[in-house]
Amino acid sequence: MPEELKAIVFDVFGTVVDWRGGVTRAVAAAGVFGDPARFADEWYAGYRPALDAVRSGVEPWAKLDILHRRNLDALLSRQRVTLDDAARQSLGRAWEQLDPWPDAVPGLARLKARFIIGTLTNGSVGQMVRLAKHGGLPWDITFTAELVRHYKPDPEAYRMVPDYLGLEPGQCMLVASHAYDLRSARQHGLRTAYVTRPLEYGPGPPHESVAEGEFDLLARDFLHLAGLLGA
Amino acid sequence: MPEELKAIVFDVFGTVVDWRGGVTRAVAAAGVFGDPARFADEWYAGYRPALDAVRSGVEPWAKLDILHRRNLDALLSRQRVTLDDAARQSLGRAWEQLDPWPDAVPGLARLKARFIIGTLTNGSVGQMVRLAKHGGLPWDITFTAELVRHYKPDPEAYRMVPDYLGLEPGQCMLVASHAYDLRSARQHGLRTAYVTRPLEYGPGPPHESVAEGEFDLLARDFLHLAGLLGA
Repeated sequence: MPEELKAIVFDVFGTVVDWRGGVTRAVAAAGVFGDPARFADEWYAGYRPALDAVRSGVEPWAKLDILHRRNLDALLSRQRVTLDDAARQSLGRAWEQLDPWPDAVPGLARLKARFIIGTLTNGSVGQMVRLAKHGGLPWDITFTAELVRHYKPDPEAYRMVPDYLGLEPGQCMLVASHAYDLRSARQHGLRTAYVTRPLEYGPGPPHESVAEGEFDLLARDFLHLAGLLGA
Repeated sequence: MPEELKAIVFDVFGTVVDWRGGVTRAVAAAGVFGDPARFADEWYAGYRPALDAVRSGVEPWAKLDILHRRNLDALLSRQRVTLDDAARQSLGRAWEQLDPWPDAVPGLARLKARFIIGTLTNGSVGQMVRLAKHGGLPWDITFTAELVRHYKPDPEAYRMVPDYLGLEPGQCMLVASHAYDLRSARQHGLRTAYVTRPLEYGPGPPHESVAEGEFDLLARDFLHLAGLLGA
């Protein structure tokens, strides 16, 4: 590799933590929604459209906490479910109490010994801090869309990593389980590692497949990734 | 206290790490400057005027790395010292390799178990990440002037803490060994803790004294602070 790798940043929801499992549990605990996993999926289905409305300028900037809450309110309304504000707030906090995939913390610990490790997420700063506390995620630095008010895959989100760290883009790598994210990172000069998370969207066939060689590295999980990077 | 304390942010240079000791060692290692501690003091003397030039709009925004480098260049020029670019860069990195005061890491570890802990510093993101790696500082979050392009004591620097964390200002506390910093934090609703660092500016009489009761807490060091906060 031409430049020495110094910093590795990670997409978080899906790549580091199991959003579907955690949100499903929180929905089940709220006890009012029929099939909790289906409710979680429908809640999540509003995520990308809400980001795109902000990215295109149709909606003004809002933290992900706010977007999730709006989508929850809309979903409850469509399903004619009555739920008070405290219960809605509590459900919103499910996104801050998601468990890491089993390999995530030990893999990050190995990578942290050799590299700067951080988030690069569409989640808010507050969500990331509480998620790290919940799961023991040992980040050196928290990069979020909120810092530049641009959601991934906007260019500003990727550029902030080398800019803030005082590094060249090629000294930084994005790790994600979503090809669209890595494709944009690569376009802005970051190195890329795809990690498979076969259970991110629940049981069933893979959500997407990527070609061998499309990204710099292709890893089964974070322990495999640490091995590939000599950490 | 009226609201539950959730997050504690720390001034870094002087409060958490010993900038004078570390910079003096780096200057001595460079081997060209007569009295290294005096050189460190004179380098540091350019810090506040450089920040003030940015704060007042006389100079455009620049990271602290850049301001330190400009001050170093000016000081070397005044002292007619010849030093190549690599040696100047190496000296600049001294600000990323400062040792924590002996109580800092154990005190932070206790506080981290109970609160969100983070920086609130005029240092850059890159400096903070490398300083934390060097000293094992276990931050949950890194707030820096660079994120809002306003140096302390500008209001924006303090407001970012509750804003990003989704907390009330009164749920946040600033810890610093400098009264001017705490006074501004208090003005923007943060709680305040003064920690004495009698060696920050070297041996000699105290640099400043604060009245009992001016700040919410007055601590000898971070272990004392942890005790005062029940951590």
